[in-house]
Amino acid sequence: MNEKEIMQRCIELAAMGLGRVLSNPLVGCVILKDGKVIGEGFHKEYGKEHAEINAINSVKNKNDLFGSTMFVTLEPCSHYGKTPPCIESIIKSKIKEVIIASKDPNPIVNGKGISKLLENNIEVKVGILEDEYRFVNRRYFTFIEKKRPYIILKWAQSVDGFITEPSGKKWFTSNNSKMLVHKWRAEEMAILVGSKTVENDNPYLTVRLIKGNNPIRIIITNHILQTDLNVFDSSSKTIVVTQNINVFNYYSNLSSFINSNKEVVYFDKSTLLLKELLSLLYERKIISIIVEGGLYTLERFLELDLYDECRIFITNKEFKNGIKAPAVRVKNLNYFKVGNDTLLTMYNF
Amino acid sequence: MNEKEIMQRCIELAAMGLGRVLSNPLVGCVILKDGKVIGEGFHKEYGKEHAEINAINSVKNKNDLFGSTMFVTLEPCSHYGKTPPCIESIIKSKIKEVIIASKDPNPIVNGKGISKLLENNIEVKVGILEDEYRFVNRRYFTFIEKKRPYIILKWAQSVDGFITEPSGKKWFTSNNSKMLVHKWRAEEMAILVGSKTVENDNPYLTVRLIKGNNPIRIIITNHILQTDLNVFDSSSKTIVVTQNINVFNYYSNLSSFINSNKEVVYFDKSTLLLKELLSLLYERKIISIIVEGGLYTLERFLELDLYDECRIFITNKEFKNGIKAPAVRVKNLNYFKVGNDTLLTMYNF
Repeated sequence: MNEKEIMQRCIELAAMGLGRVLSNPLVGCVILKDGKVIGEGFHKEYGKEHAEINAINSVKNKNDLFGSTMFVTLEPCSHYGKTPPCIESIIKSKIKEVIIASKDPNPIVNGKGISKLLENNIEVKVGILEDEYRFVNRRYFTFIEKKRPYIILKWAQSVDGFITEPSGKKWFTSNNSKMLVHKWRAEEMAILVGSKTVENDNPYLTVRLIKGNNPIRIIITNHILQTDLNVFDSSSKTIVVTQNINVFNYYSNLSSFINSNKEVVYFDKSTLLLKELLSLLYERKIISIIVEGGLYTLERFLELDLYDECRIFITNKEFKNGIKAPAVRVKNLNYFKVGNDTLLTMYNF
Repeated sequence: MNEKEIMQRCIELAAMGLGRVLSNPLVGCVILKDGKVIGEGFHKEYGKEHAEINAINSVKNKNDLFGSTMFVTLEPCSHYGKTPPCIESIIKSKIKEVIIASKDPNPIVNGKGISKLLENNIEVKVGILEDEYRFVNRRYFTFIEKKRPYIILKWAQSVDGFITEPSGKKWFTSNNSKMLVHKWRAEEMAILVGSKTVENDNPYLTVRLIKGNNPIRIIITNHILQTDLNVFDSSSKTIVVTQNINVFNYYSNLSSFINSNKEVVYFDKSTLLLKELLSLLYERKIISIIVEGGLYTLERFLELDLYDECRIFITNKEFKNGIKAPAVRVKNLNYFKVGNDTLLTMYNF
């Protein structure tokens, strides 16, 4: 196995943390001694051991670590966070060389980890499969570098370009597509919709068809939504975002709302809601959001070019009329079959 | 062969007239006697014989026409135009039955042909493969029914969504794509671009890589364009469309311009150029246009939803920056490989 093949394995390990590590980066790690893999690990859960520690712990005979080479996707941390710095464990275990896909752009690391390794006479190599790793860990890099969540826009439409079925049915995609949407919800930290979607479809916005964590629900509304709607159930946190002070006052004074894992946030009418909202989500360390509609909400993101990824399900049905799907610039288009539907993905970076 | 198979052959014959019959419909015709094809024809050239006449003329033994069945894509005409009415020849030749894909919505026909056949005791059946024929002859149906040309928007972009190459090169698609664009030009009656495209690219907008007729060139500009630009060469008619009275006066008073198959048209500033322009093209019997850019011109058609077809070449190169390609609603998407490029087509009907 050459360096790239080993780093590829690290990236695969990293990806296994998706939807489980919250705002932390996805990190994978492999330890090699005399050309043989002696340990593997990845970051599995927010607040728990980092990938490097899991890899070190997986080595059966700790003496093997002496003179070994560590492959890790992201620069090891040098600071005390929820866990002690990985650098300390690497130094202690007498690893000889550390091969890294990417530097950590997070200001509290950003080269400090690498400097510490070098100071301790550990060889360092950076940049193996960096682009491939950046893609897998794109939520984290976007969050740190653009100071906003990674944004995924998702909608479903008919082959002839309408996002509503004449009958008004909520779901018109195949079961495979529905399951995939639930998987996607489990992969992101928050889900965002507008008030019309909440009222027309009364969705839960939770993960039910597969196993996974529910995202935080973010609802943009400028009028009061009844609290018996499904998005206000107890299965996940819900944040109401409004530019109407009356809506803010209503929920703020509703003890059953405030005391049950819900929150209301007010932005002054004069502020541009979307950018302010993204700043707030950044402060809250919400690393990624999936926007599931409706049309008005999706178009606000599209017109500001404020999105990183577009996922469009196209059913094989014609609706003939209805609400027209949003227009989107074709960019880095991919084309898949999912059940009877076609899935288009576009990356806006 | 069943009725549908025979009508399918008529449609194939009709399609052979594309780019040759100008504002006339594409029509194909097959004559059947005792289950055998005895004649075929299609409308080949503007002002020349219609498909029915060509099919009748192709029958070797004219006695065979007695009691035969004619399959024809469009209702035969009943009026004197550039040629005598087809109905007369059909009656004279003692054809027993006429099977038609679609009625002719043109007010000067629109059922009159069918009535005349029935009055003469000829059996008539209408509607065989009507949708299939409407698609092949979509320019004509759109022109008659919407009272405007059929509009095709065409652009080429990089895989990452830019329509200009950093180096400013005009063409960045593969040779196969270039040839296809010339074929497309030969299929439409006019080609339309904005002033920026004329000045930046200095295109001829003619058909050179294949054999075919040059489309009429329509240039939208609000400033004076030098008459030594390639779009003003003698290879085809050029119409300058402007909302600037000074531009109109300039060209109107330029005898070398007016006397050389060129024309300038003025629309008052207060009129919405595009709709007025399409009405003018309708009056001129320009049945179809292909819009080849630039961004500003394409976006005007897109924002008014005034287009019938979109053809987007996507090269496999990344430009990283440049002018962003227009956004478009995904509708009836098709996906092809052309050389190294991908061709997306979307039908907006």
